[in-house]
Amino acid sequence: MDLLEVLHLDELSHGLANVSMFPYFDMAHYIVSIMALREQPGVLRLSRVSPLACWFSSMLFCFGGAVLSAIMLAEPVVAPLSNSTSVLLASITWYLVFYCPVDLVYRCAALLPLRLVLTGMKEVTRTWKVLGGVIQAHNKYNDSLLVMIAVGWAKGAGGGLISNFEQLVRGVWKPETNELLKMSYPTKITLIGAVLFALQQTHYLPVKKHHLMLIYTVFTVVNKARMMLTGSSVSPFAAIESTIHKTLFSGHSSYAALTDEVEKTCMDKGAVNRTPSAKKSNEKGAGKHTPVSPVKGQSGSLKAKDESENAQTKHSKKKN
Amino acid sequence: MDLLEVLHLDELSHGLANVSMFPYFDMAHYIVSIMALREQPGVLRLSRVSPLACWFSSMLFCFGGAVLSAIMLAEPVVAPLSNSTSVLLASITWYLVFYCPVDLVYRCAALLPLRLVLTGMKEVTRTWKVLGGVIQAHNKYNDSLLVMIAVGWAKGAGGGLISNFEQLVRGVWKPETNELLKMSYPTKITLIGAVLFALQQTHYLPVKKHHLMLIYTVFTVVNKARMMLTGSSVSPFAAIESTIHKTLFSGHSSYAALTDEVEKTCMDKGAVNRTPSAKKSNEKGAGKHTPVSPVKGQSGSLKAKDESENAQTKHSKKKN
Amino acid sequence: MDLLEVLHLDELSHGLANVSMFPYFDMAHYIVSIMALREQPGVLRLSRVSPLACWFSSMLFCFGGAVLSAIMLAEPVVAPLSNSTSVLLASITWYLVFYCPVDLVYRCAALLPLRLVLTGMKEVTRTWKVLGGVIQAHNKYNDSLLVMIAVGWAKGAGGGLISNFEQLVRGVWKPETNELLKMSYPTKITLIGAVLFALQQTHYLPVKKHHLMLIYTVFTVVNKARMMLTGSSVSPFAAIESTIHKTLFSGHSSYAALTDEVEKTCMDKGAVNRTPSAKKSNEKGAGKHTPVSPVKGQSGSLKAKDESENAQTKHSKKKN
Repeated sequence: MDLLEVLHLDELSHGLANVSMFPYFDMAHYIVSIMALREQPGVLRLSRVSPLACWFSSMLFCFGGAVLSAIMLAEPVVAPLSNSTSVLLASITWYLVFYCPVDLVYRCAALLPLRLVLTGMKEVTRTWKVLGGVIQAHNKYNDSLLVMIAVGWAKGAGGGLISNFEQLVRGVWKPETNELLKMSYPTKITLIGAVLFALQQTHYLPVKKHHLMLIYTVFTVVNKARMMLTGSSVSPFAAIESTIHKTLFSGHSSYAALTDEVEKTCMDKGAVNRTPSAKKSNEKGAGKHTPVSPVKGQSGSLKAKDESENAQTKHSKKKN
Repeated sequence: MDLLEVLHLDELSHGLANVSMFPYFDMAHYIVSIMALREQPGVLRLSRVSPLACWFSSMLFCFGGAVLSAIMLAEPVVAPLSNSTSVLLASITWYLVFYCPVDLVYRCAALLPLRLVLTGMKEVTRTWKVLGGVIQAHNKYNDSLLVMIAVGWAKGAGGGLISNFEQLVRGVWKPETNELLKMSYPTKITLIGAVLFALQQTHYLPVKKHHLMLIYTVFTVVNKARMMLTGSSVSPFAAIESTIHKTLFSGHSSYAALTDEVEKTCMDKGAVNRTPSAKKSNEKGAGKHTPVSPVKGQSGSLKAKDESENAQTKHSKKKN
Repeated sequence: MDLLEVLHLDELSHGLANVSMFPYFDMAHYIVSIMALREQPGVLRLSRVSPLACWFSSMLFCFGGAVLSAIMLAEPVVAPLSNSTSVLLASITWYLVFYCPVDLVYRCAALLPLRLVLTGMKEVTRTWKVLGGVIQAHNKYNDSLLVMIAVGWAKGAGGGLISNFEQLVRGVWKPETNELLKMSYPTKITLIGAVLFALQQTHYLPVKKHHLMLIYTVFTVVNKARMMLTGSSVSPFAAIESTIHKTLFSGHSSYAALTDEVEKTCMDKGAVNRTPSAKKSNEKGAGKHTPVSPVKGQSGSLKAKDESENAQTKHSKKKN
């Protein structure tokens, strides 16, 4: 990494590596996470009817990664609760985002410039969380690259990976969607981070840790800011993914026809994966006009999760 | 607590604190829990078709708290199984409640006076379980009030908190209901107990442990007996809850209209939360007469859980 | 076990007990497991759309037992991942079964003679896995027969027992079916094995370990081969089960009528347990002809799991 040294970025990366996440960056993470929860369909109503379920859901959004990595490493699931200061901070954030008079906190934080800064700070915490997970796994399983990647990924993208069960807390159950079936951008970027940090930790990647932290952090922050400002949800890896997919997983020739068909249906997969009843209602609904049908509402909400992480982007855009 | 000493209750509370739960109180807990399971819709049929699933469900009703707190503290989930005597006792109870000739055991235990005594004894075990959970957490996390409350709550009300997964064992899946969304009375009283015992354990509550045990036990037993005898399911905390809810969680003014609406819909929330298909069938069903529709049957069973803990009360009342 | 010694089987059993599962038997287990996954409805499409979910599902088919027993004993869930060689082997198998050019690997392995050999080898690994689980539990809980049975069973039949959650990875959710409600043949035989090995380990069964391993292995292999060759899915324990069921669980006389009804409805229980929407669509579908309805597709897939373990048998038969 002579290039970095030439550019006098060595000191910067050292400085970054020594930045403490607590309290400002952690707080930004809580605010952005809980705002993302609040923008899920039905959550505002839930917050009035059942504050406890809403609080628990918020905590899973904030500490999902810690919970998931604790389960994976057989450490106490309640451990995140034992850090009283963090839980208190997250709880205050939760209260202010949902119940603040005149909705002041949410309205301010939703303003594009502030949201941009908060989201950027949240992206910075991702680096720390992924690295924390990788090191935690490294301490237990010295030489196992896979475990390090899995735990780093879980710690960085836990909220998304356990979203099925987080939704269950809120009384929502969408088995046809999960982050493994269709990865969202944050899950992907976290996976890439986990791979990079695991490779660095096992010295397969000849890079210093603080240099990698700087590069990864800058990349995630810049990319997220770009996505927020342009309102684009195009992943920067779309081309690579598509190539890998076509090369490795298009499969044997006898299934070429099937594969083509699959790729076509891939576009309207949302429709295919819907629950039978929702699907049926749509079929019927096509014939006649449907009033405020609860079924429609639900089938609409099926798409919500995919957009949840981008929701903030779009939401801010609308405000412009 | 000079008052207690004046009333010569000091010795009584010492005596109570030294009572062993095994075997009589534990047995009462098993009987009442398994009877509550048996009164869930569809369980009697399940017990004929699949005794193993029925047995496993019963064990989750009996040892759910131990299982949940084990998961939370990263202790072996099978640990409750290692106490052979308890499992044997619970299994015998399960067999007798479900398969006893002439249904003798269930019929006797369902008689109001006996059921009253058994339920009272089960309430006593709650104190021990909550306290056990709080102490268990205290040993691991010295100063964390939240962890102590969480584990105490889990140990005391585990069966209810994991009810979604207990139902899954029986092939029933009701994602729209859980104890966090809408707490039942036993879950509430256990949460209050966990808070009190955790405060006592950390010396924030200037009360001696055996005094608190006496007060809490008497309160739960008396209150449960009152609810059984009057057939009322009104929580003694309804007024306090309503006040807290209105003060803290009614939220910002701009959502006042929404909140009002929510409070109204709160009443028929069961209907709102139903699965789309069930909902739709009802809408249709309103127009024409519906025969013995399986959908109707299911939508009916959605309400069942809410009533399950009170079922025993009502059931006994009917016998009067 | 003088009989075995007379038959000069002592050396054979010693030889068998010292056979290493890695790599040939493990590989056969991976191939047969992943082929069973591939034969589930919808999986081929999944493998094109979302290779990651497909890979994760395959790993759960291959290492489900290790994962489940790790959860039960509060050991790290990621532990199976730390054995890089096994994961690599399973991943290569997964890739070849799903994406091999000209579908060569699957087509070859699906030929009856080869499949027979592979399935036989997979059955051999069952003995090792059950015994491994029993010994693992024995080391933690010396004298608890129940824990040993539970862990042995979980390790041997884990893939089946966690099938609800394995399906969830693929976006499929069938709460009305699980291995406890309706045990498949492999789950049953594994339970029996776990009981036998646990009894042997605690010296209640006066048999030497290697003798029991030989007997159990021969029984499972021969029985599986018989089922594959005859295409029969009749369990060899059907008669015993039926007797036990009638003797112990037919229950009190007042429910005799119910029980009879239950036994009748047992046959078409699949229909009863279907999701309301599927059921309804069928009712309607009976009246008019249904085109390629997605609802029909799903209701069909509800039966699929029951047949999944026998699928290989039937599949091979069709090839004849």
